[in-house]
Formats: sequence, C-alpha cells, structure tokens
Amino acid sequence: MNAVIFNGPRKIDVEKRPKPTLRDPTDAIVKVTSAGICGSELHMYRGHQKTATGHIMGHEFVGFIEEVGSDVRSFQVGQKVVCTFSPVCMCCWFCEHGYSNRCPEGLAPFGTQGLAGGQAEYVRVPFADGTLKSTPEGVDDELLIMMCDIFPTGHYGAMRAIECFRSSDLVNGNHYTDLDSPKRSGLSKSQSLEEAVFVCLGCGPVGLCAILTARSKGVRTIYVVDSVDDRLDQAAKLGGIPLKLGRDDVQAKVMKATQGRGADAVIEVVGNNAALRSAFDLLRPCGVLSSIGFHQGDLPFTALECYQKNLNINLGRAPVRTVFDEAMEVVAANKEKLASMVTHRLPLSKAAYGYEIFEKQLARKVILVP
Amino acid sequence: MNAVIFNGPRKIDVEKRPKPTLRDPTDAIVKVTSAGICGSELHMYRGHQKTATGHIMGHEFVGFIEEVGSDVRSFQVGQKVVCTFSPVCMCCWFCEHGYSNRCPEGLAPFGTQGLAGGQAEYVRVPFADGTLKSTPEGVDDELLIMMCDIFPTGHYGAMRAIECFRSSDLVNGNHYTDLDSPKRSGLSKSQSLEEAVFVCLGCGPVGLCAILTARSKGVRTIYVVDSVDDRLDQAAKLGGIPLKLGRDDVQAKVMKATQGRGADAVIEVVGNNAALRSAFDLLRPCGVLSSIGFHQGDLPFTALECYQKNLNINLGRAPVRTVFDEAMEVVAANKEKLASMVTHRLPLSKAAYGYEIFEKQLARKVILVP
Repeated sequence: MNAVIFNGPRKIDVEKRPKPTLRDPTDAIVKVTSAGICGSELHMYRGHQKTATGHIMGHEFVGFIEEVGSDVRSFQVGQKVVCTFSPVCMCCWFCEHGYSNRCPEGLAPFGTQGLAGGQAEYVRVPFADGTLKSTPEGVDDELLIMMCDIFPTGHYGAMRAIECFRSSDLVNGNHYTDLDSPKRSGLSKSQSLEEAVFVCLGCGPVGLCAILTARSKGVRTIYVVDSVDDRLDQAAKLGGIPLKLGRDDVQAKVMKATQGRGADAVIEVVGNNAALRSAFDLLRPCGVLSSIGFHQGDLPFTALECYQKNLNINLGRAPVRTVFDEAMEVVAANKEKLASMVTHRLPLSKAAYGYEIFEKQLARKVILVP
Repeated sequence: MNAVIFNGPRKIDVEKRPKPTLRDPTDAIVKVTSAGICGSELHMYRGHQKTATGHIMGHEFVGFIEEVGSDVRSFQVGQKVVCTFSPVCMCCWFCEHGYSNRCPEGLAPFGTQGLAGGQAEYVRVPFADGTLKSTPEGVDDELLIMMCDIFPTGHYGAMRAIECFRSSDLVNGNHYTDLDSPKRSGLSKSQSLEEAVFVCLGCGPVGLCAILTARSKGVRTIYVVDSVDDRLDQAAKLGGIPLKLGRDDVQAKVMKATQGRGADAVIEVVGNNAALRSAFDLLRPCGVLSSIGFHQGDLPFTALECYQKNLNINLGRAPVRTVFDEAMEVVAANKEKLASMVTHRLPLSKAAYGYEIFEKQLARKVILVP
C-alpha cells in the first residue's frame, strides 16, 4: 500500500509499505478514506520534536472497517468509523473515570515510532472498541476528520477553562453548602460567564474549535490572538474579538477590557514558551490558565510568580474519547460555521506539498485522500 | 512600647518603639493580648527570605480595640478582635469576589518592612473594617491566634484540593447538563471523596489545620508526611495516616494504596522545592496539586512533565478573610482536637527563645504575651 513516511525534518515521502494485519484480537484494520494533517505533527516536521525516522505519519483518519479481531464487539466489516488520535482501552480506571487522555494504552499516538499512522491506505487500530467511534449520519469527512483530535482538543481546552473558571469561586468562599442539592453559600459574588473576559492564544484549527465551543457554551467576550490575518478573520466569524500580534498591543487591550485586572481565563493553543508566558501575563490574579498546546521545554514562570498570582494552571492533552460525544454535538450544531475549515483536499501522493503549505500557514486544514 | 525586632537572620531582640498612632481614617490601633510566631516567619528568621532589618515582627495577633479612625464603622474601643495576617479592604473587585488573598491593599503583610507587625504591645491596623474580625464567644486566645493565618490557610489548602478534585470530572465528561439545576451528565464515573486518596506533605501547624479540615469535610484517606515524630503523632490524632520521611518509603506506600496510580490530591504545606517535586511525583495523572507553602524558587517540574501528567496545579496564599467564617466553624467544632496545638506561652521579653525553640521544632506553636 501507499503510505506517507517521515524521513526527517521537512522530508515527507510517499512510499510502499506492507498492508497492516491484525496483531491482537482487539485490533481492527481500517481502510482510510480521508486523513488529516494536524498542527501537532508540525513539531516533528519542523524538527522541534526529536524522533527517529521511517514511520507512517498521521493521527487523524476516517474510513471503513476492513477487518476485525476476534474480541472486537462494537464494529463490523464495512462500517464507517472515525478514529481518536491515540488508542484508548475504555476499560481501565482512567478511561472509566473520564481521563481517557491518560489511558496507559494510549501513550503512543498514531503516526509515531510507536504506532503506524493513518496517512496511508490502511491502518491497524489497537483497542478498536475504545479507539474507534461510529460516525453520525449527515456529517461528511471534512467535519469528521476534525473529530479525531482538533475539535475535541479545542473543545476540551475551552471546557476546562470554563469549568475551572466556574469552580474557582468554590474555593474562594462560595462552597456548595449541600452537595446533594448544590447551592453556593453566597459569601462572595460569583462572576458569570457573561461577565467574564476570556482570551484564546492561537487561532489555528484547534484554537478555532476552542473559540466555537467557548462561544456556544456562554462565553460572551473572548479575545482571540494570532499573527495570521486569515485565521483572525475565521476567529472573528466565530465570535471572537481579533487581536493581531505585531499590530495590536494585546496586553494593553486585555487590561483595558478588564479595568486593569487581566483576563479571567486564557486558553493557550500555541504550544511554545512565549505563548505560555503571555497567557500567564494576561491573566488576572486567581485566573484560570488552560494550556492545550504541546509543550516540551521548561515552564516560563517561577514558583514565586505562581504563588504571587494564585492561578489555577492546567496543562496537558485532551481526553478526546471521553468528550467525543459532547464535542460532536457542538460540531453537528455548527456545521456551516466549520465548513470553511478544510481548504485543501489532496491525493495522498501530494502529501509533501500538503505539509509544506500547511506549515507555511497557506492552508487552514489539509486532508489527504488515499 | 516593647516590640519584637528583626535584626537579621536568627537575631531577634525586644526593643523600645513609639506606640503607633492612627495614620488613615480607616485605621485602628489594637492593644495586643496574644501574638503568635508563624512558620512562615521562619523563612525570614533563617535568612532564606532576604529582607532589610529593623521592623517589628508578627502577623498573628489578637487584642482589644484601643482607638479607631473616623471612617471605621464596624468596631468600637474596647472590643475584642482577631486580625488577618495581611490588610484587606473588602470592597475592591478581588475582595468582593472572594479573592481577598489578592486584595491590592494587602501586598505587605504585618511584620514586614512594609507594615509593622503585632509582636508588640500595640499595632496599627489599616483597613480595620476589612482586616479585623470580631471574636466569637467561648473561644480563647490560643484558638483565636490560629485564625489570623494558619487555620484559614490550612483550611483553604484542603478546600482547594477538595473542590478542584470534585470539579476535575467536570472537565472530563461529567459536565453539568443544566447549570440552574446542576446534575452531572454521567458520561464517566465520578470518584467520591470517600474513595479518594489524599496526601498532606508537612504536618506543622498549617498542615495539621489542613488535615483537620480535609477529614471533617469527608476525606476518608489522607496520608500525612513529616520527619518529626511529635507532628506525626498530632496528625494521626486528627485522622491522618502517618508516613515518616527517612523511615517510610512514601512514594511506594502511596502507590500501593492507589493500585499504582498515585494520589488523587496532594496538599503541599512545606514551601520548598523538594516538597513541591514530591507532590508532583506522588500524584496520579489528572490529579490535583494544592500548594499552600510559600515558594520562592523555580518550579521543580518542566512544561513537558506537566503536559504529560495533566495535573490541576494551584499555588498561592489563602484568602484568609474570605474563608474566615467557614474556617472558624471548623475550629469551633473541633476545640478539643486543637487544644494541644499551642505548647508554649511566653512573655514578649522571651521572644528570641520562642523563635529558637520553634525553629528547632521543639515547640508546636508559640504565643508571645505583651
């Protein structure tokens, strides 16, 4: 079969590989109909994330069940499926409690040295009952491909900011007086989502998904920050207030919008140190930092700074499988707004070109078709 | 008047100082009846926290109103009061919303270069209406002195761990489906406080307060860690499971108690880098780190480690004034358990000795009497 191979930074080739076969009884083989290129693959593409070479890329793919192992219960040959970016067993303690992002089986995502990816004609899917989802009717591949990673990831980044924001006054004098019938004790004023000022740092595909969820869940004011005009235009269409890096004084604008306090919550979707530091600086004391970008370096703030600012800080990847259904609801309710997300649909043979234009931010989202 | 003066690391003297006078119309002068020595003063005493010298020490004090400014509404001369460790206006945005720990007026606590402390015969209290609390009947100075800082601080460390633990499944598939009548969507299993495994790192006075609140709010299993036998004995009496540093393999014990996952929440009360790192290592993925110790250095974990563990991380001091009333309820309901906390009651003239035995962990809690 044909497959997209990582041969080193900026070296993407389409090569012949053996068609995968079942290895474990919980495996399925999927015949891929669409595979996305994800922003997180650019860490590897650009050489920032060091890795050996020769593996098949891609952790976003949609297709049909080609073959199932003897222990697969939920899927039959011929069924259409969408795959989450990393295998999940959905039966360990973490999966059962909603932390599918920390399923011990999912440590190697698709498209890495540990597990061959989906930018290929076929792909082997471990723990098929957990890792795959059947596809709802009336949602096409362009939208489904976003459900593998970017939409649930952006959704989670936004929901984590929202839920931590909502609960922040629980730890500051508004405890539930009775958990069976939760009512705030009312010692302090609660700040509503409508009053709050959110910021989303990064308006790439994941950022746009985060903005859509934040807005659709009741965040009225969300400043959206990027350096690319097209991204900011998209973010503005989704209800964000665009601030352009290099043109706008982001810090000053956010401070002015909050009477000098700082933002109540920041969703950081960029995944570099400068963005994480910016998130820290934009927040008010006791604010919420929800970082969904992939970070490899040190934290760009000290323990003393954290102590002095009393932030609620969350980093880490999304439990895509856990939040899949509720993220799918947001996608299904906003098909038109998301329709313009995929700008390029290329044959698999044009994978190198697809990576190139995506890396140069000349494409919003690229789909490869085997 | 006599006052306890910081003349450099381990140099504590009692010297004569002018009796303070009203400076602002919102001030009160308090005649001190009891002043505590707090663990956080040891950072200065030991020389770890660099500061100029010559100021009056002490941010824990109880006494009677001696004089009030023309704008003070809530207190009259002769009234008994307890003081929170740092001035709070209780009318700014932060105070109103329960974030009195971040009141801009409270940046200099009592007992620093910025504000003369309460280890003296008299003390000037800014923003008296916010900073002071009237004292409930039937609670003596030994318990009241804990309300200035250590009990609300420990209480907050525990409540922040509990509330973040409770809300952690909100962001992992158990969102409230209807905020007016909060019910979990039930996508994932919720973990109850009774099932959870908590850890408290540090069993000094603040740690003991945290343990008492955690236990009284429903945490059934809390491992308590220290190197001092007397502290561990106290912690065990409050319902903690003692683990002694240097004797017990803390990491192994906690892992064994959680089937290898790690603790669900850690309350870190020590305030050094080793303790903060230990808290990180003891936690399960997606656990809650509530650090209430004072930290001055770098964070002892990287952004990559945070990303890979998906922790909810909170550092910073307690909103003592905000949580005062609910902390007071826990104290009032547990008078007997807390009665043994104060082991030494010394005249102000013996302040140097008081600091010495407290620093050497030969005293649980020392009170100075002017």
